[in-house]
Amino acid sequence: MTEAEFIAALRRMPLHPGAHGLMDDSAVIDAGPLVVTTDTLVEGVHFLPQDPPGDVAWKLVATNLSDLAAKGALVEGVLLNYPLGDSAWDHAFLDGLSLALARFDARLIGGDTVSLRGPRVLTLTAFGREAAAPVRSGARAGDALWVTGTIGDAGLGLAIAMGGTGPEALRDAYRRPQPRLTEGRALAPVVHAMMDVSDGLLIDAARMAQASGLAVTIDLDAVRLSPAARALGGEDRAARLAAATAGDDYELLFALPPDVTPPVAATRVGRFDAGAGLSLFDTAGPIPLPPRLGFEHAAPR
Amino acid sequence: MTEAEFIAALRRMPLHPGAHGLMDDSAVIDAGPLVVTTDTLVEGVHFLPQDPPGDVAWKLVATNLSDLAAKGALVEGVLLNYPLGDSAWDHAFLDGLSLALARFDARLIGGDTVSLRGPRVLTLTAFGREAAAPVRSGARAGDALWVTGTIGDAGLGLAIAMGGTGPEALRDAYRRPQPRLTEGRALAPVVHAMMDVSDGLLIDAARMAQASGLAVTIDLDAVRLSPAARALGGEDRAARLAAATAGDDYELLFALPPDVTPPVAATRVGRFDAGAGLSLFDTAGPIPLPPRLGFEHAAPR
Repeated sequence: MTEAEFIAALRRMPLHPGAHGLMDDSAVIDAGPLVVTTDTLVEGVHFLPQDPPGDVAWKLVATNLSDLAAKGALVEGVLLNYPLGDSAWDHAFLDGLSLALARFDARLIGGDTVSLRGPRVLTLTAFGREAAAPVRSGARAGDALWVTGTIGDAGLGLAIAMGGTGPEALRDAYRRPQPRLTEGRALAPVVHAMMDVSDGLLIDAARMAQASGLAVTIDLDAVRLSPAARALGGEDRAARLAAATAGDDYELLFALPPDVTPPVAATRVGRFDAGAGLSLFDTAGPIPLPPRLGFEHAAPR
Repeated sequence: MTEAEFIAALRRMPLHPGAHGLMDDSAVIDAGPLVVTTDTLVEGVHFLPQDPPGDVAWKLVATNLSDLAAKGALVEGVLLNYPLGDSAWDHAFLDGLSLALARFDARLIGGDTVSLRGPRVLTLTAFGREAAAPVRSGARAGDALWVTGTIGDAGLGLAIAMGGTGPEALRDAYRRPQPRLTEGRALAPVVHAMMDVSDGLLIDAARMAQASGLAVTIDLDAVRLSPAARALGGEDRAARLAAATAGDDYELLFALPPDVTPPVAATRVGRFDAGAGLSLFDTAGPIPLPPRLGFEHAAPR
């Protein structure tokens, strides 16, 4: 696919008014204070070469919008930096991009296309507006730790996408994560701290505690596993540890005063106290920390 | 260099207040309407593997800020998407980044680091504020076409960087372009149309004419060559055509009413008329268009 064909296809997507029809080198965004986030996905690192290109597009959009969700933002639009490859891949990518933009009411603001030999490197930058913008460092001693949805589905889904056996629903949890934009919007004004679970529940909870200067304790039995995950991987301590250290969940992790009930469906999984570090327990007692709390190299900033 | 070391080094650079000390997944920019631009540089395409890493950092910043200059913006800050490589390269890159940020009064807002095998792929996204933000489509019939600085230095410099003979000053014009931020700030409120010359004077002038629905005629003899360029490559028609079709100049190209003198040093090189297409002439008469008007695959949008 040539650059001109690719840009013509982009022009048929929902465009941000400041994009000047993608006819200029820059765009203008006039939407008040903006939340900005950017993520790069690398073929062979953040997605598999055999992943469907449309799902890669979806994931690229979804992972960025998940960061906006954690700020309670409305989606203003996205910039795309894209390496032109073979036409079939490009077309399928564009289909997935179109789907994701429509699904999340996101508009294209601009971007850049390049030629590239070697693994595909895709960058998306997302802009959000009207955000309460809680930070991850605001948790207070005594706060409860909550998380939306179920944990570990994407981790099992990755194994399935790599050739393992298991239901499509889990594989799709890995390939097409759902950013919690609606939940984030409701939570952002009331939480003390919030972030998305991108690298694993344990590592991300530890990061929130560290940023807040607190200790955090997690009840592993409280972590909610989906029926499909329980059917495939069980729900014993090992299965729960695997779920809590797998990445790509894109659920929202947040701190609330102990007497406050969140305005959206979520599960209370721990609490913050004075001190430092992460502790784990279940009904059988304290659990030694696993050597690896999550995916350490993804989505740093 | 590990990701943690790299981010620690970034934290020692000038940080945007909305960057939260690079401790969060998102940043907040509250600076009124923003001009946004993004460019990706690929090793082997936009820079040479043997280019000094510090110069690659400089060029990454400068090419993006050149787009802000064309909008007359003040620099608000930048996002960096960086592939961690070998430590020596990363350190040298950081040194160049630090230099460029300080030189252009730019602050780091955030970004993402990844691991990558294959050619380096670097993305920078730049934000500008308080821009008059002229577009490239605003030229009017009768307007004069002007350009700042000299044309073709970077094209000769690329040949030197690839092993050719010539002065360092030209090679550095290729490796360390100077975005015309001050000139852009003065020009933006008075021009009818403006853009930077990134792909070549002829192709970029043709793009401005096309976007404005006009024809443009360029007097090749009026195009200013630097003394170093004239000394190395001469100044006959062939040398001037080579200069006018080489990329990476990062000068500002703009349209002004014929009776208006620009508020900064610049050279009048042509005029816009009703019609379409690009025409060239010099004192010897009309010049057939060369088969290639510039670098067609760089920095599309």
